[in-house]
Amino acid sequence: MNDLDQPARPRVGVVGLGAMGLGMARSLRAAGYDVGVHDLRSHVAEEFARDGGTAYASPGDLAADVDVLVGVVVNAAQVESVLFGEGDGDGGAARRLRPGAVYVMCSTVDPAWSAALEGRLAGLGVRYLDAPISGGVARAAAGELTMMTSGSAEAYALADPFLDAMSGTVYRLGDRAGLGSKVKIVNQLLAGVHIAAAAEAMALGIKAGVPAEALYEVITHSAGNSWMFENRMAHVLAGDYTPLSAVDIFVKDLGLVLDAARPEKFPLPLSATAHQMFLQASASGLGGEDDSAVIKIFPGIDLPQPHPAERSAEHPAEKEA
Amino acid sequence: MNDLDQPARPRVGVVGLGAMGLGMARSLRAAGYDVGVHDLRSHVAEEFARDGGTAYASPGDLAADVDVLVGVVVNAAQVESVLFGEGDGDGGAARRLRPGAVYVMCSTVDPAWSAALEGRLAGLGVRYLDAPISGGVARAAAGELTMMTSGSAEAYALADPFLDAMSGTVYRLGDRAGLGSKVKIVNQLLAGVHIAAAAEAMALGIKAGVPAEALYEVITHSAGNSWMFENRMAHVLAGDYTPLSAVDIFVKDLGLVLDAARPEKFPLPLSATAHQMFLQASASGLGGEDDSAVIKIFPGIDLPQPHPAERSAEHPAEKEA
Repeated sequence: MNDLDQPARPRVGVVGLGAMGLGMARSLRAAGYDVGVHDLRSHVAEEFARDGGTAYASPGDLAADVDVLVGVVVNAAQVESVLFGEGDGDGGAARRLRPGAVYVMCSTVDPAWSAALEGRLAGLGVRYLDAPISGGVARAAAGELTMMTSGSAEAYALADPFLDAMSGTVYRLGDRAGLGSKVKIVNQLLAGVHIAAAAEAMALGIKAGVPAEALYEVITHSAGNSWMFENRMAHVLAGDYTPLSAVDIFVKDLGLVLDAARPEKFPLPLSATAHQMFLQASASGLGGEDDSAVIKIFPGIDLPQPHPAERSAEHPAEKEA
Repeated sequence: MNDLDQPARPRVGVVGLGAMGLGMARSLRAAGYDVGVHDLRSHVAEEFARDGGTAYASPGDLAADVDVLVGVVVNAAQVESVLFGEGDGDGGAARRLRPGAVYVMCSTVDPAWSAALEGRLAGLGVRYLDAPISGGVARAAAGELTMMTSGSAEAYALADPFLDAMSGTVYRLGDRAGLGSKVKIVNQLLAGVHIAAAAEAMALGIKAGVPAEALYEVITHSAGNSWMFENRMAHVLAGDYTPLSAVDIFVKDLGLVLDAARPEKFPLPLSATAHQMFLQASASGLGGEDDSAVIKIFPGIDLPQPHPAERSAEHPAEKEA
C-alpha cells in the first residue's frame, strides 16, 4: 500500500482494546496512523476498524503486519499468551514479528519478569520497550497518558513517534528493560496505599460526625491531600462505585509490589497493610466495585448515598420525581 | 489609648511565638493591629515587640488586655497551662480574660477535649473557637494558613477579622467546638500516613536501583503523588533532615489520631502501621530530625547525600571549593 518511491511508513498495532487500549488505539488513529488492532472480543476490534484501521483475528496475524506492536493487556500471563500463546494456532506474536520490530509492553508486571522478557525477545530478533502506563481512562482517550519507559536506543528509535501520539508525557528512564516497571510498581504502591488511607480517613471523619462534603473540601485544600484522595473520594461522595478501576486491580497490584520486594527481603509495612484492606474488601464481595469501595470495610458508618437525580437516571420510573 | 468618641477597637494577643505563632503574630501586625504577645522565652516576645506590639510577662497579663487571645502552643497540656496554669502566680489566662472575650485554640488536640474546653470556658464567661491550623511555617509567615474552625456565632463575630488577617482560608465547619479538631485529626492521619508511605515508596525504588531524582520526577507527575510526597521527598533528595516538622510531631499526632478513634472502637490499620514506623524512627534516635527521616528506618539503601555546594554553606572553610 506504500508508494514505491518512499520508504515504507512504520505500521503500528494494538493488542487489547480495554478502556485503556481503546483510547490509545484511537489516539494513534487520530494522529494519522493506519492502526491494526486485535482483541479477544472480536466485535470490539471490528467496531474500532469501522472508523479506520484494520481488525485482526489473532495477535500473530496482527504482529506479521506491523513494525511496532503495543500490548495493553491486564497482566504478565496475558502478555505471555499474546507473545507465546499457542491457542490461536499461529504460535503467538513473538515469532510472527519481523526481525527488528518492537513490542511495547504497557502492562503492570513484576520488573524482574519484564527485564527477562527483553532477553527472551532478543533471542527472536525482536526489540522490546518496558512501558507501563498511568493516568486512567479519560487521559488514555485524550492521548494524555503518562508512560514510564526503559529500553534500548534501537527500540526507542522505531517506537518514539507512536509513544508521543499516545501520551502526554513519556518518561525515558534508562537503556534496559525493568526500570519502567520498577517506577510503575512504586507508583502503584503509593496509589494503593493512598486509596486505602483516603478511605480510612474519610471513614474516621464520617464516624466522628463530620459532614463528608466539608471534609472533602478541607482535605483537598490541605497538606493531607493526595491525587487519589481527590479523585476517589469524589466517588464516595457521589455514592457511585461503578468500577473505573476495581478493588481487585489493587489486590493484584499491591500483591505485585509485595512480590517484587520479597526476594530482596525488603519490608513494606504500609503496602502490606493496604493489601490486607483490599483483600478484606474483595473477600466481602466488593472485588468488582470501584477501588474506592475499600471504604466499605469500615463498619458502622453511614456512607453518602447516590443523589436522587443520579438514581433517577438509572430508574426511569423515578424521572418525574 | 482609644479615642473616646469611638468604640474601642478589639485588641488581639498571641500566646506562643514558635515558628507558626510568630508568623501569625506578624501577619496580625502587618494588618494594622496592635498585637500583644507572650512566650515562655521572654526574649522572643521582646524581640517581636521591637518592631511594634507589646510583650507581656505572663499569659494572664496579656489576657487582661485583649478581646481575642490566639493560642499557638504545642499540645493540650500547654493550652491547660496557658488558660488555667498557676505557675505564673496570676492564675492563668482564662480568669483574666474579660467576659465575652474569645480564646482561639490553634493546637492539634483530641477533639473531645476541645469540645469539653468550650464548656469549661463558658462557665467563666469566655467564648471559644476550636481553630487548628495547617500549612507550615512558610504559609504562616505569609498570612496564608488554613484554619479549620468551629464555634459559636458570638465567638466568630469577635474573632473573624483576626482569623482573616492570619489565614488564606478559614473553614467554618459548624457552631460547636470539636468539628475543627476532628477535621484536623483527619488531616494529620493523612499527612502522617502519606509521609510514611512516601518514605516506603522512595526506599523501595532506591533499593531497586531507580535513580531517586527520576523517581521523584515521575511520581510527582503521576497518580501516586501526594502533597506530602512532593514536599517531604524533596528533603530526602537534598539529604537535608533539618527539622521543619520533626519525627516526634507525628509520633504525637498519629498517637492523637489513634486515641481519638479508640473510645469508638474504630479500627485504623494504616494509621497504626504508620505510627509504628515513626516510633521506630524515634526509638532509633531520629525523633528530632525532619519527619522525612522516617525513611532511615529502611535498612540497606543508599540515601542521597547533601550536595557539596550546600555542605559548603555550613562549612565556610569549604566555601572556595
